[in-house]
Amino acid sequence: MTSKQVKPRFGAVRTASGAVRPLSGVRITGGLLHHWQRRNSLATIPHTIGQLRAAGNVTNLSRLLDQDPAPYRGRYPFLDTDLYKTLEGLAYELGDDPAQKPAREFFEEVVGLLERVQAEDGYLNSYFQDPAATKRPWEDPAWGHELYTLGHLVQAAVAAGRRMGDDRLLRVARRFADLVVRTFAADGVCGHPEVEMALVELYRETGERAYLDLAATFVDRRGTGRLRHSIFAGDYFQDHVPFRELESVTGHAVRMAYLAAGAADVFLENGDRSLLETLERLWDDMVATKLYITGGLGSRHADEAIGDRYELPPERAYNETCAAIALMQWAWRMFLATGGAPYLDVFERVLYNAYAVGLSADGTAFFYDNPLQRRPDHRQRSGAEPDGEPLRRAWFGCACCPPNIVRWTAQLADYVAAERDGAVLVGLYTPATIETAELDLAMETSYPWDGEVRLTIERAPDGPYGLALRVPGWARGATVTVNGERQDVTAAAGWITLERRWTAGDTVVLILPMPVRAHGSHPYLDATRGTVSLARGPLVYCVEQQDSPAAAVDDLLVAVPDIAVARTGGLDTRQAPEAVRTAFGEAVVLHVEAAAAPPPPAELYPSIPPEQPLEEALPEARVATTFVPYFLWGNRGPEAMRVWVRTMTPRN
Amino acid sequence: MTSKQVKPRFGAVRTASGAVRPLSGVRITGGLLHHWQRRNSLATIPHTIGQLRAAGNVTNLSRLLDQDPAPYRGRYPFLDTDLYKTLEGLAYELGDDPAQKPAREFFEEVVGLLERVQAEDGYLNSYFQDPAATKRPWEDPAWGHELYTLGHLVQAAVAAGRRMGDDRLLRVARRFADLVVRTFAADGVCGHPEVEMALVELYRETGERAYLDLAATFVDRRGTGRLRHSIFAGDYFQDHVPFRELESVTGHAVRMAYLAAGAADVFLENGDRSLLETLERLWDDMVATKLYITGGLGSRHADEAIGDRYELPPERAYNETCAAIALMQWAWRMFLATGGAPYLDVFERVLYNAYAVGLSADGTAFFYDNPLQRRPDHRQRSGAEPDGEPLRRAWFGCACCPPNIVRWTAQLADYVAAERDGAVLVGLYTPATIETAELDLAMETSYPWDGEVRLTIERAPDGPYGLALRVPGWARGATVTVNGERQDVTAAAGWITLERRWTAGDTVVLILPMPVRAHGSHPYLDATRGTVSLARGPLVYCVEQQDSPAAAVDDLLVAVPDIAVARTGGLDTRQAPEAVRTAFGEAVVLHVEAAAAPPPPAELYPSIPPEQPLEEALPEARVATTFVPYFLWGNRGPEAMRVWVRTMTPRN
Repeated sequence: MTSKQVKPRFGAVRTASGAVRPLSGVRITGGLLHHWQRRNSLATIPHTIGQLRAAGNVTNLSRLLDQDPAPYRGRYPFLDTDLYKTLEGLAYELGDDPAQKPAREFFEEVVGLLERVQAEDGYLNSYFQDPAATKRPWEDPAWGHELYTLGHLVQAAVAAGRRMGDDRLLRVARRFADLVVRTFAADGVCGHPEVEMALVELYRETGERAYLDLAATFVDRRGTGRLRHSIFAGDYFQDHVPFRELESVTGHAVRMAYLAAGAADVFLENGDRSLLETLERLWDDMVATKLYITGGLGSRHADEAIGDRYELPPERAYNETCAAIALMQWAWRMFLATGGAPYLDVFERVLYNAYAVGLSADGTAFFYDNPLQRRPDHRQRSGAEPDGEPLRRAWFGCACCPPNIVRWTAQLADYVAAERDGAVLVGLYTPATIETAELDLAMETSYPWDGEVRLTIERAPDGPYGLALRVPGWARGATVTVNGERQDVTAAAGWITLERRWTAGDTVVLILPMPVRAHGSHPYLDATRGTVSLARGPLVYCVEQQDSPAAAVDDLLVAVPDIAVARTGGLDTRQAPEAVRTAFGEAVVLHVEAAAAPPPPAELYPSIPPEQPLEEALPEARVATTFVPYFLWGNRGPEAMRVWVRTMTPRN
Repeated sequence: MTSKQVKPRFGAVRTASGAVRPLSGVRITGGLLHHWQRRNSLATIPHTIGQLRAAGNVTNLSRLLDQDPAPYRGRYPFLDTDLYKTLEGLAYELGDDPAQKPAREFFEEVVGLLERVQAEDGYLNSYFQDPAATKRPWEDPAWGHELYTLGHLVQAAVAAGRRMGDDRLLRVARRFADLVVRTFAADGVCGHPEVEMALVELYRETGERAYLDLAATFVDRRGTGRLRHSIFAGDYFQDHVPFRELESVTGHAVRMAYLAAGAADVFLENGDRSLLETLERLWDDMVATKLYITGGLGSRHADEAIGDRYELPPERAYNETCAAIALMQWAWRMFLATGGAPYLDVFERVLYNAYAVGLSADGTAFFYDNPLQRRPDHRQRSGAEPDGEPLRRAWFGCACCPPNIVRWTAQLADYVAAERDGAVLVGLYTPATIETAELDLAMETSYPWDGEVRLTIERAPDGPYGLALRVPGWARGATVTVNGERQDVTAAAGWITLERRWTAGDTVVLILPMPVRAHGSHPYLDATRGTVSLARGPLVYCVEQQDSPAAAVDDLLVAVPDIAVARTGGLDTRQAPEAVRTAFGEAVVLHVEAAAAPPPPAELYPSIPPEQPLEEALPEARVATTFVPYFLWGNRGPEAMRVWVRTMTPRN
């Protein structure tokens, strides 16, 4: 069989310069990710379109065509991006199914408006184009978000071009981008990074080198104190030191991760090694010191910022949903640049935990911040969570997260697999079909509920060819069979690679054992000392008060050996996992027998008599609890929740 | 000897309606508090006057007399209060020594300006009186701070009247207060409580009942959603539920504590029992669940808010210095209302820790927030702490804390002692003279460095009379001698009371043993699990990296028995304490032999194999460390600091 021409379907990153190349011919055909994509189409997108209309995002554009325009609605100058992110998601939807009616109508309406509203010189931002605006275009680089807005426009436009073959938005985007190339030739940078990724993608799409060069320039123009703001200081904008001199990811979390992802894109196209070295250093430091176990980034509510090293309190984790998306974008580009599997380990950790938790089980309510603990008497930041409201909210005044979920879930197929010369690499495990020029693969699995992955070669390459399967860091004792025969292979640097001559119908079965794990934490991470977090496969688990009827979750004591021994039958991947139908859908839950701590002391800071041993007698009685995947918490009303539970034998 | 007329000298609270009455005839004559008062006079006040002039607080008033006034300087509508708090402090200074020249000049200049600037109808606020102001008076109750401003004016005016016999400010304040009584008769309340305390004091000073009634009304008008703000919601302003229905102290910490102090003042004068019950409930809940071991209140940087119960992370403690002052005001009024010693225990804890830490050793630099931990790579909220700046800052754009320290330190003598019929109660131990109508006392002590307090009766009452000495909750085995004879008395409800016929020259010696204590924390307080805090007497201690040359403070492991056994010779109060001259003055420091933890794992969240015991072998070698009083940290450059240090045998 000869190689075939695969119609490029991906929309997000199209580079041929990295260690590996993205694969466009992937469809997610079933399982949890497919459920998310269906929910996106059927629930989240209609909800989002309704909310965008209600919030004024559409009329903010259309009123500019009026003689005497109504006032701009909303408080922020970046509200157009909520439309752009939605259009980006719709480009994937309509690329697959052009007839989706409400989606198509919305797409046509907004694209038509953008074409008409765009200024003569290419400028486009409904906040600053308002005749009543108190600020002029480009007047406020720190807070204007104009290049951030361009970035999301470009990403939507590229997706529409690639997925739908519709170049109307691309023409709009290029006119604005060309204006920006002229305007920012000599100086200037935007307070909110994002345009860097987009400009590199526009270069990839058009071949116009000026876009790439400007993106590279934007990365290097930061850090010289150009961005001035009455409230926020330099590090909020990553403007306090030049990018290559950053010691650690810092400042506003979403800005930081978008910037790093953009810098990775610049490296991918211009090969600037010092950029890659900076990115590797920042990445490694972040993973070792600043990332929540869920993959959440940014512990501070104040300034939505990344905190100090090891400043990772579960209760006050900010972990904005947009930061999760930005982090996956960064991870994916690092993977493309290096082929390193650990980047995909983090991608997957974020995907199934810090990202997925941002959306309700029914797909129509959102978390903006994603803490790892909810106290019984929790009150969120004033006003964000009125009494009696559900935990997740239908929309926000600053609604950056919901449409970001729309676009990201829509494009998940772009992140399943990749290729290099002579091999295909499978990074995410999900029912899917993978088509490359060389081969077609069908993947079947119940992952992440189960660690068994079955791959069938449906079209084989002519000669020897590699199939590289990612073995996540948590998977010990992974095994592979080909046509039922156990292979003598072990993971190297996170990959099991099968190099052989394939025949259509060959079947590869990868087994990633999924015992329940207990994770401790680094001793400098004060906020989780003496506790453990339960995990299984890529999923972090938590306990909600609803599932601990006999004891408050703050009183639960879990013994690590008990977790391993007393886990529910069927949770070992060799057997069928217990995927139970919960109030919020199919899920594997963990039944853990915990102890209930004795009643706590009345005093907040009891004095410890030196003669009294610190270790207390542990209660023998056990109470039944159920731990659910973290991403499913908060679908049953506001009660206490913990990811990190106390252990019987805490460490220092 | 018959009773004598004592000239009333106190300025802060003058009530005769509580369980105990404040005492005006106290002078602090030596020791640490006297050092603080001297430093206030010699360093902090001149520094503050200079900063107020430089920041424009004075010209914000004087320009209003110009034909074409210069713009208002600063971002906030409450900058006049920085002047008022300074005037309040100066009233104490000038009351004691009317000839202090720069203080007198500043006082005269500002009082003169206020008299001239005040509007015809009594209104006074230099922000809203600005002809160029974008808002009119009373237009923005949530953020205008106009009654908060009146409150500080009244407190300064009352202090000037009482301490200096100067009624000029009082006339200004009454004109404004009378306008407020008329304006707010039917409706309205201020977004920032403070005026409640002030109006009650103005009632006490003038006998005008309308002030008291309005204060009572303001307490009860909150909680009905009157206060609307684009960023902050109801609980920020304590406006989400009526005051008497609050379950727990919540929202903006300074607002909450000022409100509670004002409500206590209202109770003191109108005897509304349900207010007192509310206050007792809120207080007990706060002490049991929401107070840092330093007495700091308010764990959240976002909204400067009090967090959930047990949400007390040391690294992110906000603990605004103003909240410490507000909390002492509330504690003092609860003490007056009830005579309860535990209120003074908290007062003292705040005074020597959460309050004192707010000022540098040299008296000219300030903390706004007061965390209990500094990580080695700490970066504060963006912009608050540029690289290379000292930890404490010379001034702030929102400079509420520095002049609050000025006024509070100046009036500390008002909080040393109290009386009830037939007894004097000594609450704070410091070298001082105490004059009441019945007796004169001289107090000598090295407290808080040492727990021995010597009281000499210099003028005795005619008949039997009580001397009540507070025994702090931490003091076990307190003893008392009278004229060298051990008394058979024990503390009851926090007081040792000696009831006898006194003779001039009688000497009472109270000994409060001061071993070094190790405090654990409540198991729900996740952020300090497995750590201890060292304390001695009322002082909380911390370790700075400078004093742990052999190990990082994050690696120190302290064994509780070691603390008790290995404490430095002389720290027991029966011997002379080792008050060493440190880089920042005289202090008792603790020499603690700690262990250094083995190198931490590389992974942030290591998986724990079930078969591996959690308890690790502890290192036997000890490293020498010195713990210093928490209030003295941060005077030697920005390095890591911990109040809570890891223990060898952590608890759950």
